[in-house]
Amino acid sequence: MALTIVTFDWVPPMPRGYVRDLRARWACEEAGLPYAVETVPMRPKSPAHQAIQPFAQVPILREGALTLFESGAIVLHLAQRSDALMPADAEGRAHVLQWVMAALGSVESWTLPWLIALLFDRDEAATARAATRMDERLGQLAAVLEGRDWLVGDRFTAADLLMADVLRIVDDHGGLDAHPLLRAYVARATARPAFRKAHRDQLDHFAAADAPVAASLQGADA
Amino acid sequence: MALTIVTFDWVPPMPRGYVRDLRARWACEEAGLPYAVETVPMRPKSPAHQAIQPFAQVPILREGALTLFESGAIVLHLAQRSDALMPADAEGRAHVLQWVMAALGSVESWTLPWLIALLFDRDEAATARAATRMDERLGQLAAVLEGRDWLVGDRFTAADLLMADVLRIVDDHGGLDAHPLLRAYVARATARPAFRKAHRDQLDHFAAADAPVAASLQGADA
Repeated sequence: MALTIVTFDWVPPMPRGYVRDLRARWACEEAGLPYAVETVPMRPKSPAHQAIQPFAQVPILREGALTLFESGAIVLHLAQRSDALMPADAEGRAHVLQWVMAALGSVESWTLPWLIALLFDRDEAATARAATRMDERLGQLAAVLEGRDWLVGDRFTAADLLMADVLRIVDDHGGLDAHPLLRAYVARATARPAFRKAHRDQLDHFAAADAPVAASLQGADA
Repeated sequence: MALTIVTFDWVPPMPRGYVRDLRARWACEEAGLPYAVETVPMRPKSPAHQAIQPFAQVPILREGALTLFESGAIVLHLAQRSDALMPADAEGRAHVLQWVMAALGSVESWTLPWLIALLFDRDEAATARAATRMDERLGQLAAVLEGRDWLVGDRFTAADLLMADVLRIVDDHGGLDAHPLLRAYVARATARPAFRKAHRDQLDHFAAADAPVAASLQGADA
Protein backbone atom coordinates (compact mmCIF):
# COMPACT_ATOMS: atom_id res chain seq x y z
CA MET A 1 0.00 0.00 0.00
CA ALA A 2 1.32 3.45 -0.94
CA LEU A 3 2.92 5.45 1.86
CA THR A 4 2.49 9.15 2.43
CA ILE A 5 4.51 11.11 4.97
CA VAL A 6 2.79 14.28 6.11
CA THR A 7 4.99 17.16 7.27
CA PHE A 8 4.72 20.93 7.58
CA ASP A 9 4.50 23.10 4.47
CA TRP A 10 7.25 25.33 5.90
CA VAL A 11 9.29 25.80 9.07
CA PRO A 12 11.73 28.54 10.11
CA PRO A 13 15.43 27.91 9.40
CA MET A 14 16.39 26.67 12.89
CA PRO A 15 14.44 23.39 12.99
CA ARG A 16 15.24 22.49 9.38
CA GLY A 17 17.06 19.18 9.26
CA TYR A 18 15.54 18.24 12.64
CA VAL A 19 11.80 18.13 11.91
CA ARG A 20 10.74 14.64 12.82
CA ASP A 21 9.49 13.67 9.39
CA LEU A 22 13.24 13.02 9.03
CA ARG A 23 12.80 9.85 11.08
CA ALA A 24 10.01 8.56 8.84
CA ARG A 25 11.89 9.51 5.66
CA TRP A 26 15.05 7.82 6.97
CA ALA A 27 13.17 4.62 7.81
CA CYS A 28 11.61 4.51 4.34
CA GLU A 29 15.00 5.07 2.71
CA GLU A 30 16.63 2.31 4.76
CA ALA A 31 13.80 -0.07 3.93
CA GLY A 32 13.59 0.89 0.26
CA LEU A 33 9.94 1.89 0.64
CA PRO A 34 8.82 4.61 -1.77
CA TYR A 35 6.71 7.39 -0.30
CA ALA A 36 4.94 10.58 -1.21
CA VAL A 37 5.12 13.78 0.85
CA GLU A 38 2.08 15.88 1.71
CA THR A 39 1.90 18.94 3.90
CA VAL A 40 -0.16 20.61 6.59
CA PRO A 41 0.11 24.33 7.33
CA MET A 42 2.66 25.36 9.94
CA ARG A 43 1.18 28.80 10.65
CA PRO A 44 -1.51 28.67 11.71
CA LYS A 45 -2.00 24.97 12.32
CA SER A 46 -5.25 23.77 10.80
CA PRO A 47 -8.26 22.14 12.48
CA ALA A 48 -7.96 19.37 9.86
CA HIS A 49 -4.41 18.71 11.08
CA GLN A 50 -5.38 18.72 14.74
CA ALA A 51 -8.28 16.37 13.93
CA ILE A 52 -5.80 13.65 12.93
CA GLN A 53 -2.89 14.72 15.19
CA PRO A 54 -4.21 16.09 18.48
CA PHE A 55 -0.85 17.65 19.40
CA ALA A 56 -0.63 19.35 15.97
CA GLN A 57 2.74 17.71 15.40
CA VAL A 58 4.34 16.00 12.43
CA PRO A 59 5.04 13.48 11.01
CA ILE A 60 1.88 11.64 10.23
CA LEU A 61 2.02 8.48 8.12
CA ARG A 62 -0.85 7.61 5.82
CA GLU A 63 -1.13 4.18 4.29
CA GLY A 64 -4.49 3.43 2.71
CA ALA A 65 -7.08 3.98 5.43
CA LEU A 66 -4.50 3.94 8.22
CA THR A 67 -3.38 7.21 9.77
CA LEU A 68 -0.54 6.97 12.25
CA PHE A 69 1.36 9.59 14.26
CA GLU A 70 4.27 9.63 16.72
CA SER A 71 7.59 9.22 14.92
CA GLY A 72 8.54 6.25 17.11
CA ALA A 73 5.33 4.41 16.23
CA ILE A 74 5.81 5.21 12.53
CA VAL A 75 9.39 3.92 12.50
CA LEU A 76 8.41 0.72 14.35
CA HIS A 77 5.42 0.26 12.05
CA LEU A 78 7.68 0.52 9.00
CA ALA A 79 10.34 -1.65 10.67
CA GLN A 80 7.86 -4.47 11.16
CA ARG A 81 7.74 -4.97 7.42
CA SER A 82 11.43 -4.74 6.62
CA ASP A 83 14.50 -6.78 7.48
CA ALA A 84 16.47 -3.58 6.92
CA LEU A 85 15.26 -2.12 10.22
CA MET A 86 14.52 -5.10 12.44
CA PRO A 87 15.99 -8.59 12.85
CA ALA A 88 13.70 -11.55 12.18
CA ASP A 89 14.14 -13.39 15.49
CA ALA A 90 11.81 -12.76 18.43
CA GLU A 91 14.58 -11.80 20.87
CA GLY A 92 16.10 -9.33 18.44
CA ARG A 93 12.70 -7.78 17.80
CA ALA A 94 12.02 -7.44 21.51
CA HIS A 95 15.40 -5.78 21.98
CA VAL A 96 14.75 -3.32 19.15
CA LEU A 97 11.52 -2.38 20.91
CA GLN A 98 13.44 -2.02 24.19
CA TRP A 99 16.02 0.32 22.69
CA VAL A 100 13.42 2.33 20.81
CA MET A 101 11.74 2.94 24.16
CA ALA A 102 15.09 3.73 25.77
CA ALA A 103 15.86 6.27 23.03
CA LEU A 104 12.54 8.10 23.25
CA GLY A 105 12.09 7.65 27.01
CA SER A 106 15.15 7.09 29.15
CA VAL A 107 17.48 9.09 26.92
CA GLU A 108 15.33 11.79 25.29
CA SER A 109 13.68 12.52 28.67
CA TRP A 110 17.08 13.83 29.78
CA THR A 111 18.26 15.44 26.56
CA LEU A 112 15.07 17.39 25.86
CA PRO A 113 15.12 19.38 29.15
CA TRP A 114 18.74 20.34 28.40
CA LEU A 115 17.89 21.50 24.89
CA ILE A 116 14.88 23.47 26.15
CA ALA A 117 16.85 25.13 28.95
CA LEU A 118 19.72 25.93 26.55
CA LEU A 119 17.87 27.01 23.42
CA PHE A 120 14.46 28.25 24.54
CA ASP A 121 14.64 29.31 28.17
CA ARG A 122 18.31 30.37 27.91
CA ASP A 123 18.55 29.77 31.63
CA GLU A 124 22.12 29.02 32.71
CA ALA A 125 21.29 27.41 36.07
CA ALA A 126 18.59 25.22 34.52
CA THR A 127 20.93 24.27 31.67
CA ALA A 128 23.66 23.25 34.12
CA ARG A 129 21.21 21.20 36.20
CA ALA A 130 19.85 19.51 33.08
CA ALA A 131 23.39 18.89 31.81
CA THR A 132 24.34 16.98 34.96
CA ARG A 133 21.35 14.67 34.62
CA MET A 134 21.85 14.25 30.88
CA ASP A 135 25.56 13.47 31.28
CA GLU A 136 24.91 10.65 33.71
CA ARG A 137 22.50 9.04 31.27
CA LEU A 138 24.81 9.61 28.30
CA GLY A 139 27.70 8.02 30.19
CA GLN A 140 25.57 4.94 30.84
CA LEU A 141 24.64 4.76 27.17
CA ALA A 142 28.25 5.18 26.08
CA ALA A 143 29.18 2.17 28.23
CA VAL A 144 26.65 0.08 26.28
CA LEU A 145 28.19 1.08 22.97
CA GLU A 146 31.74 0.34 24.06
CA GLY A 147 33.13 -2.09 21.50
CA ARG A 148 29.87 -2.15 19.54
CA ASP A 149 28.76 -0.29 16.46
CA TRP A 150 25.01 -0.67 17.03
CA LEU A 151 22.59 -1.32 19.88
CA VAL A 152 21.07 -4.64 18.86
CA GLY A 153 22.75 -7.72 17.36
CA ASP A 154 25.71 -6.03 15.72
CA ARG A 155 23.65 -4.44 12.95
CA PHE A 156 21.83 -1.16 12.30
CA THR A 157 18.17 -1.27 13.36
CA ALA A 158 15.23 1.05 13.97
CA ALA A 159 16.60 1.49 17.49
CA ASP A 160 19.79 3.05 16.14
CA LEU A 161 17.82 5.25 13.77
CA LEU A 162 15.88 6.76 16.67
CA MET A 163 18.73 6.83 19.20
CA ALA A 164 21.05 8.52 16.71
CA ASP A 165 18.40 11.06 15.84
CA VAL A 166 17.84 11.84 19.54
CA LEU A 167 21.59 12.30 20.02
CA ARG A 168 22.28 14.17 16.78
CA ILE A 169 20.72 17.45 17.90
CA VAL A 170 22.50 17.17 21.26
CA ASP A 171 25.79 16.72 19.41
CA ASP A 172 25.08 19.69 17.16
CA HIS A 173 24.85 21.87 20.29
CA GLY A 174 28.00 20.49 21.91
CA GLY A 175 26.25 18.15 24.34
CA LEU A 176 28.29 15.10 23.31
CA ASP A 177 31.69 16.76 23.62
CA ALA A 178 32.47 14.71 26.74
CA HIS A 179 31.25 11.50 25.07
CA PRO A 180 33.45 10.78 22.02
CA LEU A 181 32.05 7.29 21.70
CA LEU A 182 28.54 8.68 21.28
CA ARG A 183 29.81 11.26 18.80
CA ALA A 184 31.32 8.43 16.76
CA TYR A 185 28.01 6.53 16.97
CA VAL A 186 26.07 9.53 15.66
CA ALA A 187 28.65 10.06 12.91
CA ARG A 188 28.36 6.38 11.92
CA ALA A 189 24.58 6.54 11.74
CA THR A 190 24.38 9.84 9.89
CA ALA A 191 26.99 8.73 7.33
CA ARG A 192 24.52 6.16 6.04
CA PRO A 193 23.25 6.97 2.53
CA ALA A 194 19.64 6.59 3.72
CA PHE A 195 20.10 9.29 6.37
CA ARG A 196 21.89 11.61 3.96
CA LYS A 197 19.17 11.30 1.36
CA ALA A 198 16.38 11.79 3.93
CA HIS A 199 18.16 14.79 5.44
CA ARG A 200 18.82 16.43 2.08
CA ASP A 201 15.24 15.80 0.98
CA GLN A 202 13.92 17.51 4.10
CA LEU A 203 16.18 20.51 3.61
CA ASP A 204 15.13 20.71 -0.05
CA HIS A 205 11.46 20.44 0.91
CA PHE A 206 11.61 23.44 3.20
CA ALA A 207 13.89 25.40 0.85
CA ALA A 208 11.35 24.91 -1.92
CA ALA A 209 8.71 26.37 0.40
CA ASP A 210 10.79 29.56 0.58
CA ALA A 211 10.78 29.94 -3.19
CA PRO A 212 7.23 31.35 -3.49
CA VAL A 213 8.04 33.76 -0.66
CA ALA A 214 11.21 34.87 -2.44
CA ALA A 215 9.25 35.18 -5.70
CA SER A 216 6.57 37.30 -4.11
CA LEU A 217 9.22 39.51 -2.50
CA GLN A 218 10.82 39.96 -5.90
CA GLY A 219 7.38 40.75 -7.30
CA ALA A 220 6.87 43.38 -4.63
CA ASP A 221 10.27 44.75 -5.51
CA ALA A 222 9.61 45.04 -9.21
CA MET B 1 7.27 -19.54 29.41
CA ALA B 2 7.39 -18.42 33.06
CA LEU B 3 7.59 -14.67 33.62
CA THR B 4 9.72 -12.96 36.23
CA ILE B 5 9.46 -9.27 37.02
CA VAL B 6 12.61 -7.85 38.58
CA THR B 7 12.25 -4.83 40.86
CA PHE B 8 14.19 -3.26 43.71
CA ASP B 9 14.53 -5.02 47.05
CA TRP B 10 13.48 -1.84 48.81
CA VAL B 11 12.72 1.81 48.06
CA PRO B 12 12.07 4.78 50.37
CA PRO B 13 8.42 5.57 51.18
CA MET B 14 7.93 8.35 48.60
CA PRO B 15 8.23 6.31 45.37
CA ARG B 16 6.21 3.38 46.72
CA GLY B 17 3.19 2.80 44.54
CA TYR B 18 4.96 4.52 41.63
CA VAL B 19 7.96 2.26 40.97
CA ARG B 20 7.59 1.19 37.39
CA ASP B 21 7.39 -2.51 38.05
CA LEU B 22 3.77 -1.45 38.67
CA ARG B 23 3.31 -1.19 34.91
CA ALA B 24 4.60 -4.72 34.32
CA ARG B 25 2.56 -6.12 37.23
CA TRP B 26 -0.57 -4.35 35.99
CA ALA B 27 -0.10 -5.71 32.45
CA CYS B 28 0.31 -9.26 33.78
CA GLU B 29 -2.80 -8.89 35.94
CA GLU B 30 -4.88 -7.58 33.02
CA ALA B 31 -3.67 -10.42 30.80
CA GLY B 32 -4.01 -13.13 33.45
CA LEU B 33 -0.34 -14.01 33.13
CA PRO B 34 1.21 -15.40 36.32
CA TYR B 35 4.62 -14.05 37.28
CA ALA B 36 7.29 -14.31 39.92
CA VAL B 37 9.05 -11.33 41.48
CA GLU B 38 12.80 -11.13 41.99
CA THR B 39 14.84 -8.24 43.29
CA VAL B 40 18.02 -6.29 42.73
CA PRO B 41 19.58 -4.12 45.45
CA MET B 42 18.48 -0.50 45.57
CA ARG B 43 21.44 0.77 47.63
CA PRO B 44 23.97 0.41 46.30
CA LYS B 45 22.97 -0.72 42.83
CA SER B 46 24.86 -3.82 41.81
CA PRO B 47 27.18 -4.38 38.83
CA ALA B 48 25.08 -7.47 38.02
CA HIS B 49 22.03 -5.20 37.75
CA GLN B 50 23.78 -2.64 35.59
CA ALA B 51 25.07 -5.45 33.37
CA ILE B 52 21.51 -6.25 32.31
CA GLN B 53 20.02 -2.75 32.75
CA PRO B 54 22.59 -0.11 31.79
CA PHE B 55 20.60 2.71 33.45
CA ALA B 56 20.28 0.65 36.69
CA GLN B 57 16.50 1.02 36.51
CA VAL B 58 13.62 -1.36 37.05
CA PRO B 59 11.55 -3.19 35.94
CA ILE B 60 13.30 -5.92 34.04
CA LEU B 61 11.28 -8.80 32.60
CA ARG B 62 12.80 -12.24 32.36
CA GLU B 63 11.17 -14.93 30.26
CA GLY B 64 13.34 -17.97 29.64
CA ALA B 65 16.52 -16.67 28.01
CA LEU B 66 14.97 -13.28 27.18
CA THR B 67 15.82 -10.28 29.33
CA LEU B 68 13.89 -7.11 28.56
CA PHE B 69 13.89 -3.65 30.13
CA GLU B 70 12.01 -0.36 29.61
CA SER B 71 8.51 -0.55 31.06
CA GLY B 72 6.96 0.50 27.75
CA ALA B 73 8.71 -2.32 25.90
CA ILE B 74 7.71 -4.82 28.59
CA VAL B 75 4.06 -3.78 28.47
CA LEU B 76 3.98 -3.93 24.66
CA HIS B 77 5.78 -7.28 24.70
CA LEU B 78 3.16 -8.69 27.09
CA ALA B 79 0.35 -7.02 25.13
CA GLN B 80 1.39 -8.78 21.95
CA ARG B 81 0.33 -12.07 23.46
CA SER B 82 -2.96 -11.03 25.00
CA ASP B 83 -6.28 -9.79 23.66
CA ALA B 84 -6.75 -8.16 27.06
CA LEU B 85 -4.23 -5.44 26.23
CA MET B 86 -4.32 -5.11 22.45
CA PRO B 87 -6.99 -5.47 19.77
CA ALA B 88 -6.46 -8.17 17.14
CA ASP B 89 -6.80 -5.99 14.02
CA ALA B 90 -3.77 -4.37 12.41
CA GLU B 91 -5.12 -0.81 12.61
CA GLY B 92 -6.00 -1.18 16.28
CA ARG B 93 -2.54 -2.56 17.03
CA ALA B 94 -0.85 0.29 15.18
CA HIS B 95 -2.94 2.78 17.15
CA VAL B 96 -2.04 1.14 20.46
CA LEU B 97 1.61 1.54 19.49
CA GLN B 98 0.94 5.18 18.56
CA TRP B 99 -0.66 5.98 21.91
CA VAL B 100 1.98 4.10 23.88
CA MET B 101 4.55 6.33 22.19
CA ALA B 102 2.40 9.41 22.84
CA ALA B 103 2.13 8.49 26.54
CA LEU B 104 5.86 7.94 27.06
CA GLY B 105 7.00 10.64 24.63
CA SER B 106 4.66 13.49 23.82
CA VAL B 107 2.94 13.45 27.22
CA GLU B 108 5.56 12.24 29.72
CA SER B 109 8.16 14.56 28.12
CA TRP B 110 6.07 17.44 29.47
CA THR B 111 4.93 15.96 32.78
CA LEU B 112 8.36 14.77 33.91
CA PRO B 113 10.01 18.24 33.84
CA TRP B 114 7.08 19.56 35.92
CA LEU B 115 7.46 16.78 38.49
CA ILE B 116 11.22 17.27 38.67
CA ALA B 117 10.94 21.05 39.08
CA LEU B 118 8.21 20.65 41.69
CA LEU B 119 9.48 17.71 43.74
CA PHE B 120 13.25 17.62 43.29
CA ASP B 121 14.46 21.07 42.31
CA ARG B 122 11.68 22.85 44.26
CA ASP B 123 12.17 25.74 41.86
CA GLU B 124 9.03 27.89 41.61
CA ALA B 125 9.90 29.63 38.34
CA ALA B 126 10.90 26.37 36.67
CA THR B 127 7.75 24.69 37.97
CA ALA B 128 5.56 27.47 36.56
CA ARG B 129 7.32 27.32 33.20
CA ALA B 130 6.96 23.53 33.08
CA ALA B 131 3.31 23.79 34.16
CA THR B 132 2.47 26.03 31.20
CA ARG B 133 3.96 23.57 28.74
CA MET B 134 2.40 20.58 30.47
CA ASP B 135 -1.04 22.19 30.56
CA GLU B 136 -1.08 22.81 26.84
CA ARG B 137 -0.33 19.16 26.19
CA LEU B 138 -2.83 17.94 28.78
CA GLY B 139 -5.53 20.13 27.24
CA GLN B 140 -4.85 18.55 23.85
CA LEU B 141 -5.06 15.09 25.38
CA ALA B 142 -8.28 15.92 27.21
CA ALA B 143 -9.84 16.90 23.87
CA VAL B 144 -9.04 13.42 22.54
CA LEU B 145 -10.80 11.78 25.47
CA GLU B 146 -13.91 13.92 25.21
CA GLY B 147 -16.82 11.49 24.91
CA ARG B 148 -14.51 8.46 25.05
CA ASP B 149 -13.53 6.20 27.89
CA TRP B 150 -10.31 4.90 26.34
CA LEU B 151 -7.77 5.91 23.72
CA VAL B 152 -8.15 3.13 21.14
CA GLY B 153 -11.29 1.46 19.85
CA ASP B 154 -13.56 2.06 22.83
CA ARG B 155 -11.78 -0.47 25.05
CA PHE B 156 -8.97 -0.53 27.59
CA THR B 157 -5.58 -1.30 26.03
CA ALA B 158 -1.89 -1.18 26.85
CA ALA B 159 -1.98 2.46 25.72
CA ASP B 160 -4.40 3.35 28.52
CA LEU B 161 -2.34 1.41 31.04
CA LEU B 162 0.71 3.51 30.26
CA MET B 163 -1.08 6.83 29.72
CA ALA B 164 -2.99 6.47 32.99
CA ASP B 165 0.20 5.60 34.84
CA VAL B 166 1.95 8.65 33.40
CA LEU B 167 -0.98 10.86 34.47
CA ARG B 168 -1.59 9.26 37.87
CA ILE B 169 1.46 10.75 39.57
CA VAL B 170 0.66 14.14 38.02
CA ASP B 171 -2.85 13.87 39.45
CA ASP B 172 -1.53 12.90 42.87
CA HIS B 173 0.41 16.18 42.96
CA GLY B 174 -2.49 18.34 41.80
CA GLY B 175 -1.39 18.66 38.18
CA LEU B 176 -4.72 17.52 36.73
CA ASP B 177 -6.87 19.88 38.79
CA ALA B 178 -7.64 21.98 35.71
CA HIS B 179 -8.39 18.85 33.65
CA PRO B 180 -11.39 17.03 35.20
CA LEU B 181 -11.77 14.83 32.17
CA LEU B 182 -8.23 13.49 32.64
CA ARG B 183 -8.84 13.02 36.36
CA ALA B 184 -11.89 10.92 35.49
CA TYR B 185 -9.80 8.92 32.99
CA VAL B 186 -7.15 8.16 35.63
CA ALA B 187 -9.86 7.24 38.15
CA ARG B 188 -11.46 4.90 35.59
CA ALA B 189 -8.16 3.16 34.87
CA THR B 190 -7.03 2.85 38.46
CA ALA B 191 -10.42 1.47 39.55
CA ARG B 192 -9.72 -1.64 37.51
CA PRO B 193 -9.17 -4.74 39.67
CA ALA B 194 -5.89 -5.48 37.84
CA PHE B 195 -4.46 -2.07 38.77
CA ARG B 196 -5.62 -2.36 42.37
CA LYS B 197 -4.04 -5.78 42.78
CA ALA B 198 -0.78 -4.70 41.14
CA HIS B 199 -0.63 -1.55 43.24
CA ARG B 200 -1.37 -3.37 46.50
CA ASP B 201 1.20 -6.06 45.65
CA GLN B 202 3.87 -3.42 45.07
CA LEU B 203 3.09 -1.69 48.36
CA ASP B 204 3.15 -5.05 50.15
CA HIS B 205 6.46 -5.96 48.50
CA PHE B 206 8.21 -2.86 49.80
CA ALA B 207 6.48 -3.03 53.19
CA ALA B 208 7.77 -6.59 53.60
CA ALA B 209 11.27 -5.28 52.92
CA ASP B 210 10.89 -3.01 55.94
CA ALA B 211 10.09 -5.97 58.22
CA PRO B 212 13.71 -7.22 58.63
CA VAL B 213 14.76 -3.64 59.39
CA ALA B 214 12.03 -3.37 62.04
CA ALA B 215 12.99 -6.80 63.45
CA SER B 216 16.65 -5.85 63.68
CA LEU B 217 15.72 -2.58 65.40
CA GLN B 218 13.63 -4.55 67.89
CA GLY B 219 16.57 -6.92 68.36
CA ALA B 220 18.86 -3.98 69.08
CA ASP B 221 16.26 -2.81 71.57
CA ALA B 222 16.03 -6.08 73.47
